[in-house]
Amino acid sequence: MALNKYMKIAMTEARKAGRRGDVPVGAVIVEVSSGRVLAQAGNRVEADSDPTGHAEILVLREVAIKVCSPRLSGCDIYVTLEPCPMCAQAISFSRIRRLYFGAYDSKNGAVDHGVKIFSQKFCNHKPEIIGSLEEKKCSNILKEFFDRRRQA
Amino acid sequence: MALNKYMKIAMTEARKAGRRGDVPVGAVIVEVSSGRVLAQAGNRVEADSDPTGHAEILVLREVAIKVCSPRLSGCDIYVTLEPCPMCAQAISFSRIRRLYFGAYDSKNGAVDHGVKIFSQKFCNHKPEIIGSLEEKKCSNILKEFFDRRRQA
Repeated sequence: MALNKYMKIAMTEARKAGRRGDVPVGAVIVEVSSGRVLAQAGNRVEADSDPTGHAEILVLREVAIKVCSPRLSGCDIYVTLEPCPMCAQAISFSRIRRLYFGAYDSKNGAVDHGVKIFSQKFCNHKPEIIGSLEEKKCSNILKEFFDRRRQA
Repeated sequence: MALNKYMKIAMTEARKAGRRGDVPVGAVIVEVSSGRVLAQAGNRVEADSDPTGHAEILVLREVAIKVCSPRLSGCDIYVTLEPCPMCAQAISFSRIRRLYFGAYDSKNGAVDHGVKIFSQKFCNHKPEIIGSLEEKKCSNILKEFFDRRRQA
């Protein structure tokens, strides 16, 4: 089966993040009506000295500013890793239609693990969720990054 | 007792946010060693079309870029409202020394309510927490904003 083209872009962004010393996670936002990619980014916590610089936050902010609205109900997001609580809550605030993610994160994930943001009663918007899209390839990017780091 | 000077600045930012149509929440980051205010902001979700534009995120990002590090262990943050999951997680990532907040948020708060981010086992950094600092004044700012909105 062909690699999902949006997740492929997110994976490319993840690898670029890893090469600059950030944890290799990538994200893409797609306009549902046109299939157009509106933003793509990898983590930039270290690159930009930004504790909030996760890939999801970067693409959400970029698209919202571009379309002049903090509400992105006509968009889907693709992320290589299960979002953390910060990013899951930001995805909820942005009213994204659908969340696709690759690898599961049993430690810091907040979709199927931990605080499960979208299952909380305070959560005003729960996107449709499709997990484990290209899971193996996405988790390999992270595994290789941390293996290299341990050897360094 | 005199009003805490940092929370007073945060409250001024909160009121400014309310006047421009954002939920009136304000935040201030203070350098512990000097007592200097490094950043102050109110919510800018609507003003900037930014779903992540909570006051806490804005000041964390501003200070981290200023000091060229995503880790702000020499800083304290003052917020007029108990942080939500997105902001609580961002505060944890930034390794802020101490979190002071004003009003409690029984619905969306994530410090003493809801998912209690800092009490989760995945949470790598829990700041010292001082809640209900100028609680009444901080919650009045929000109450007045929502009362006006309901009457409009």
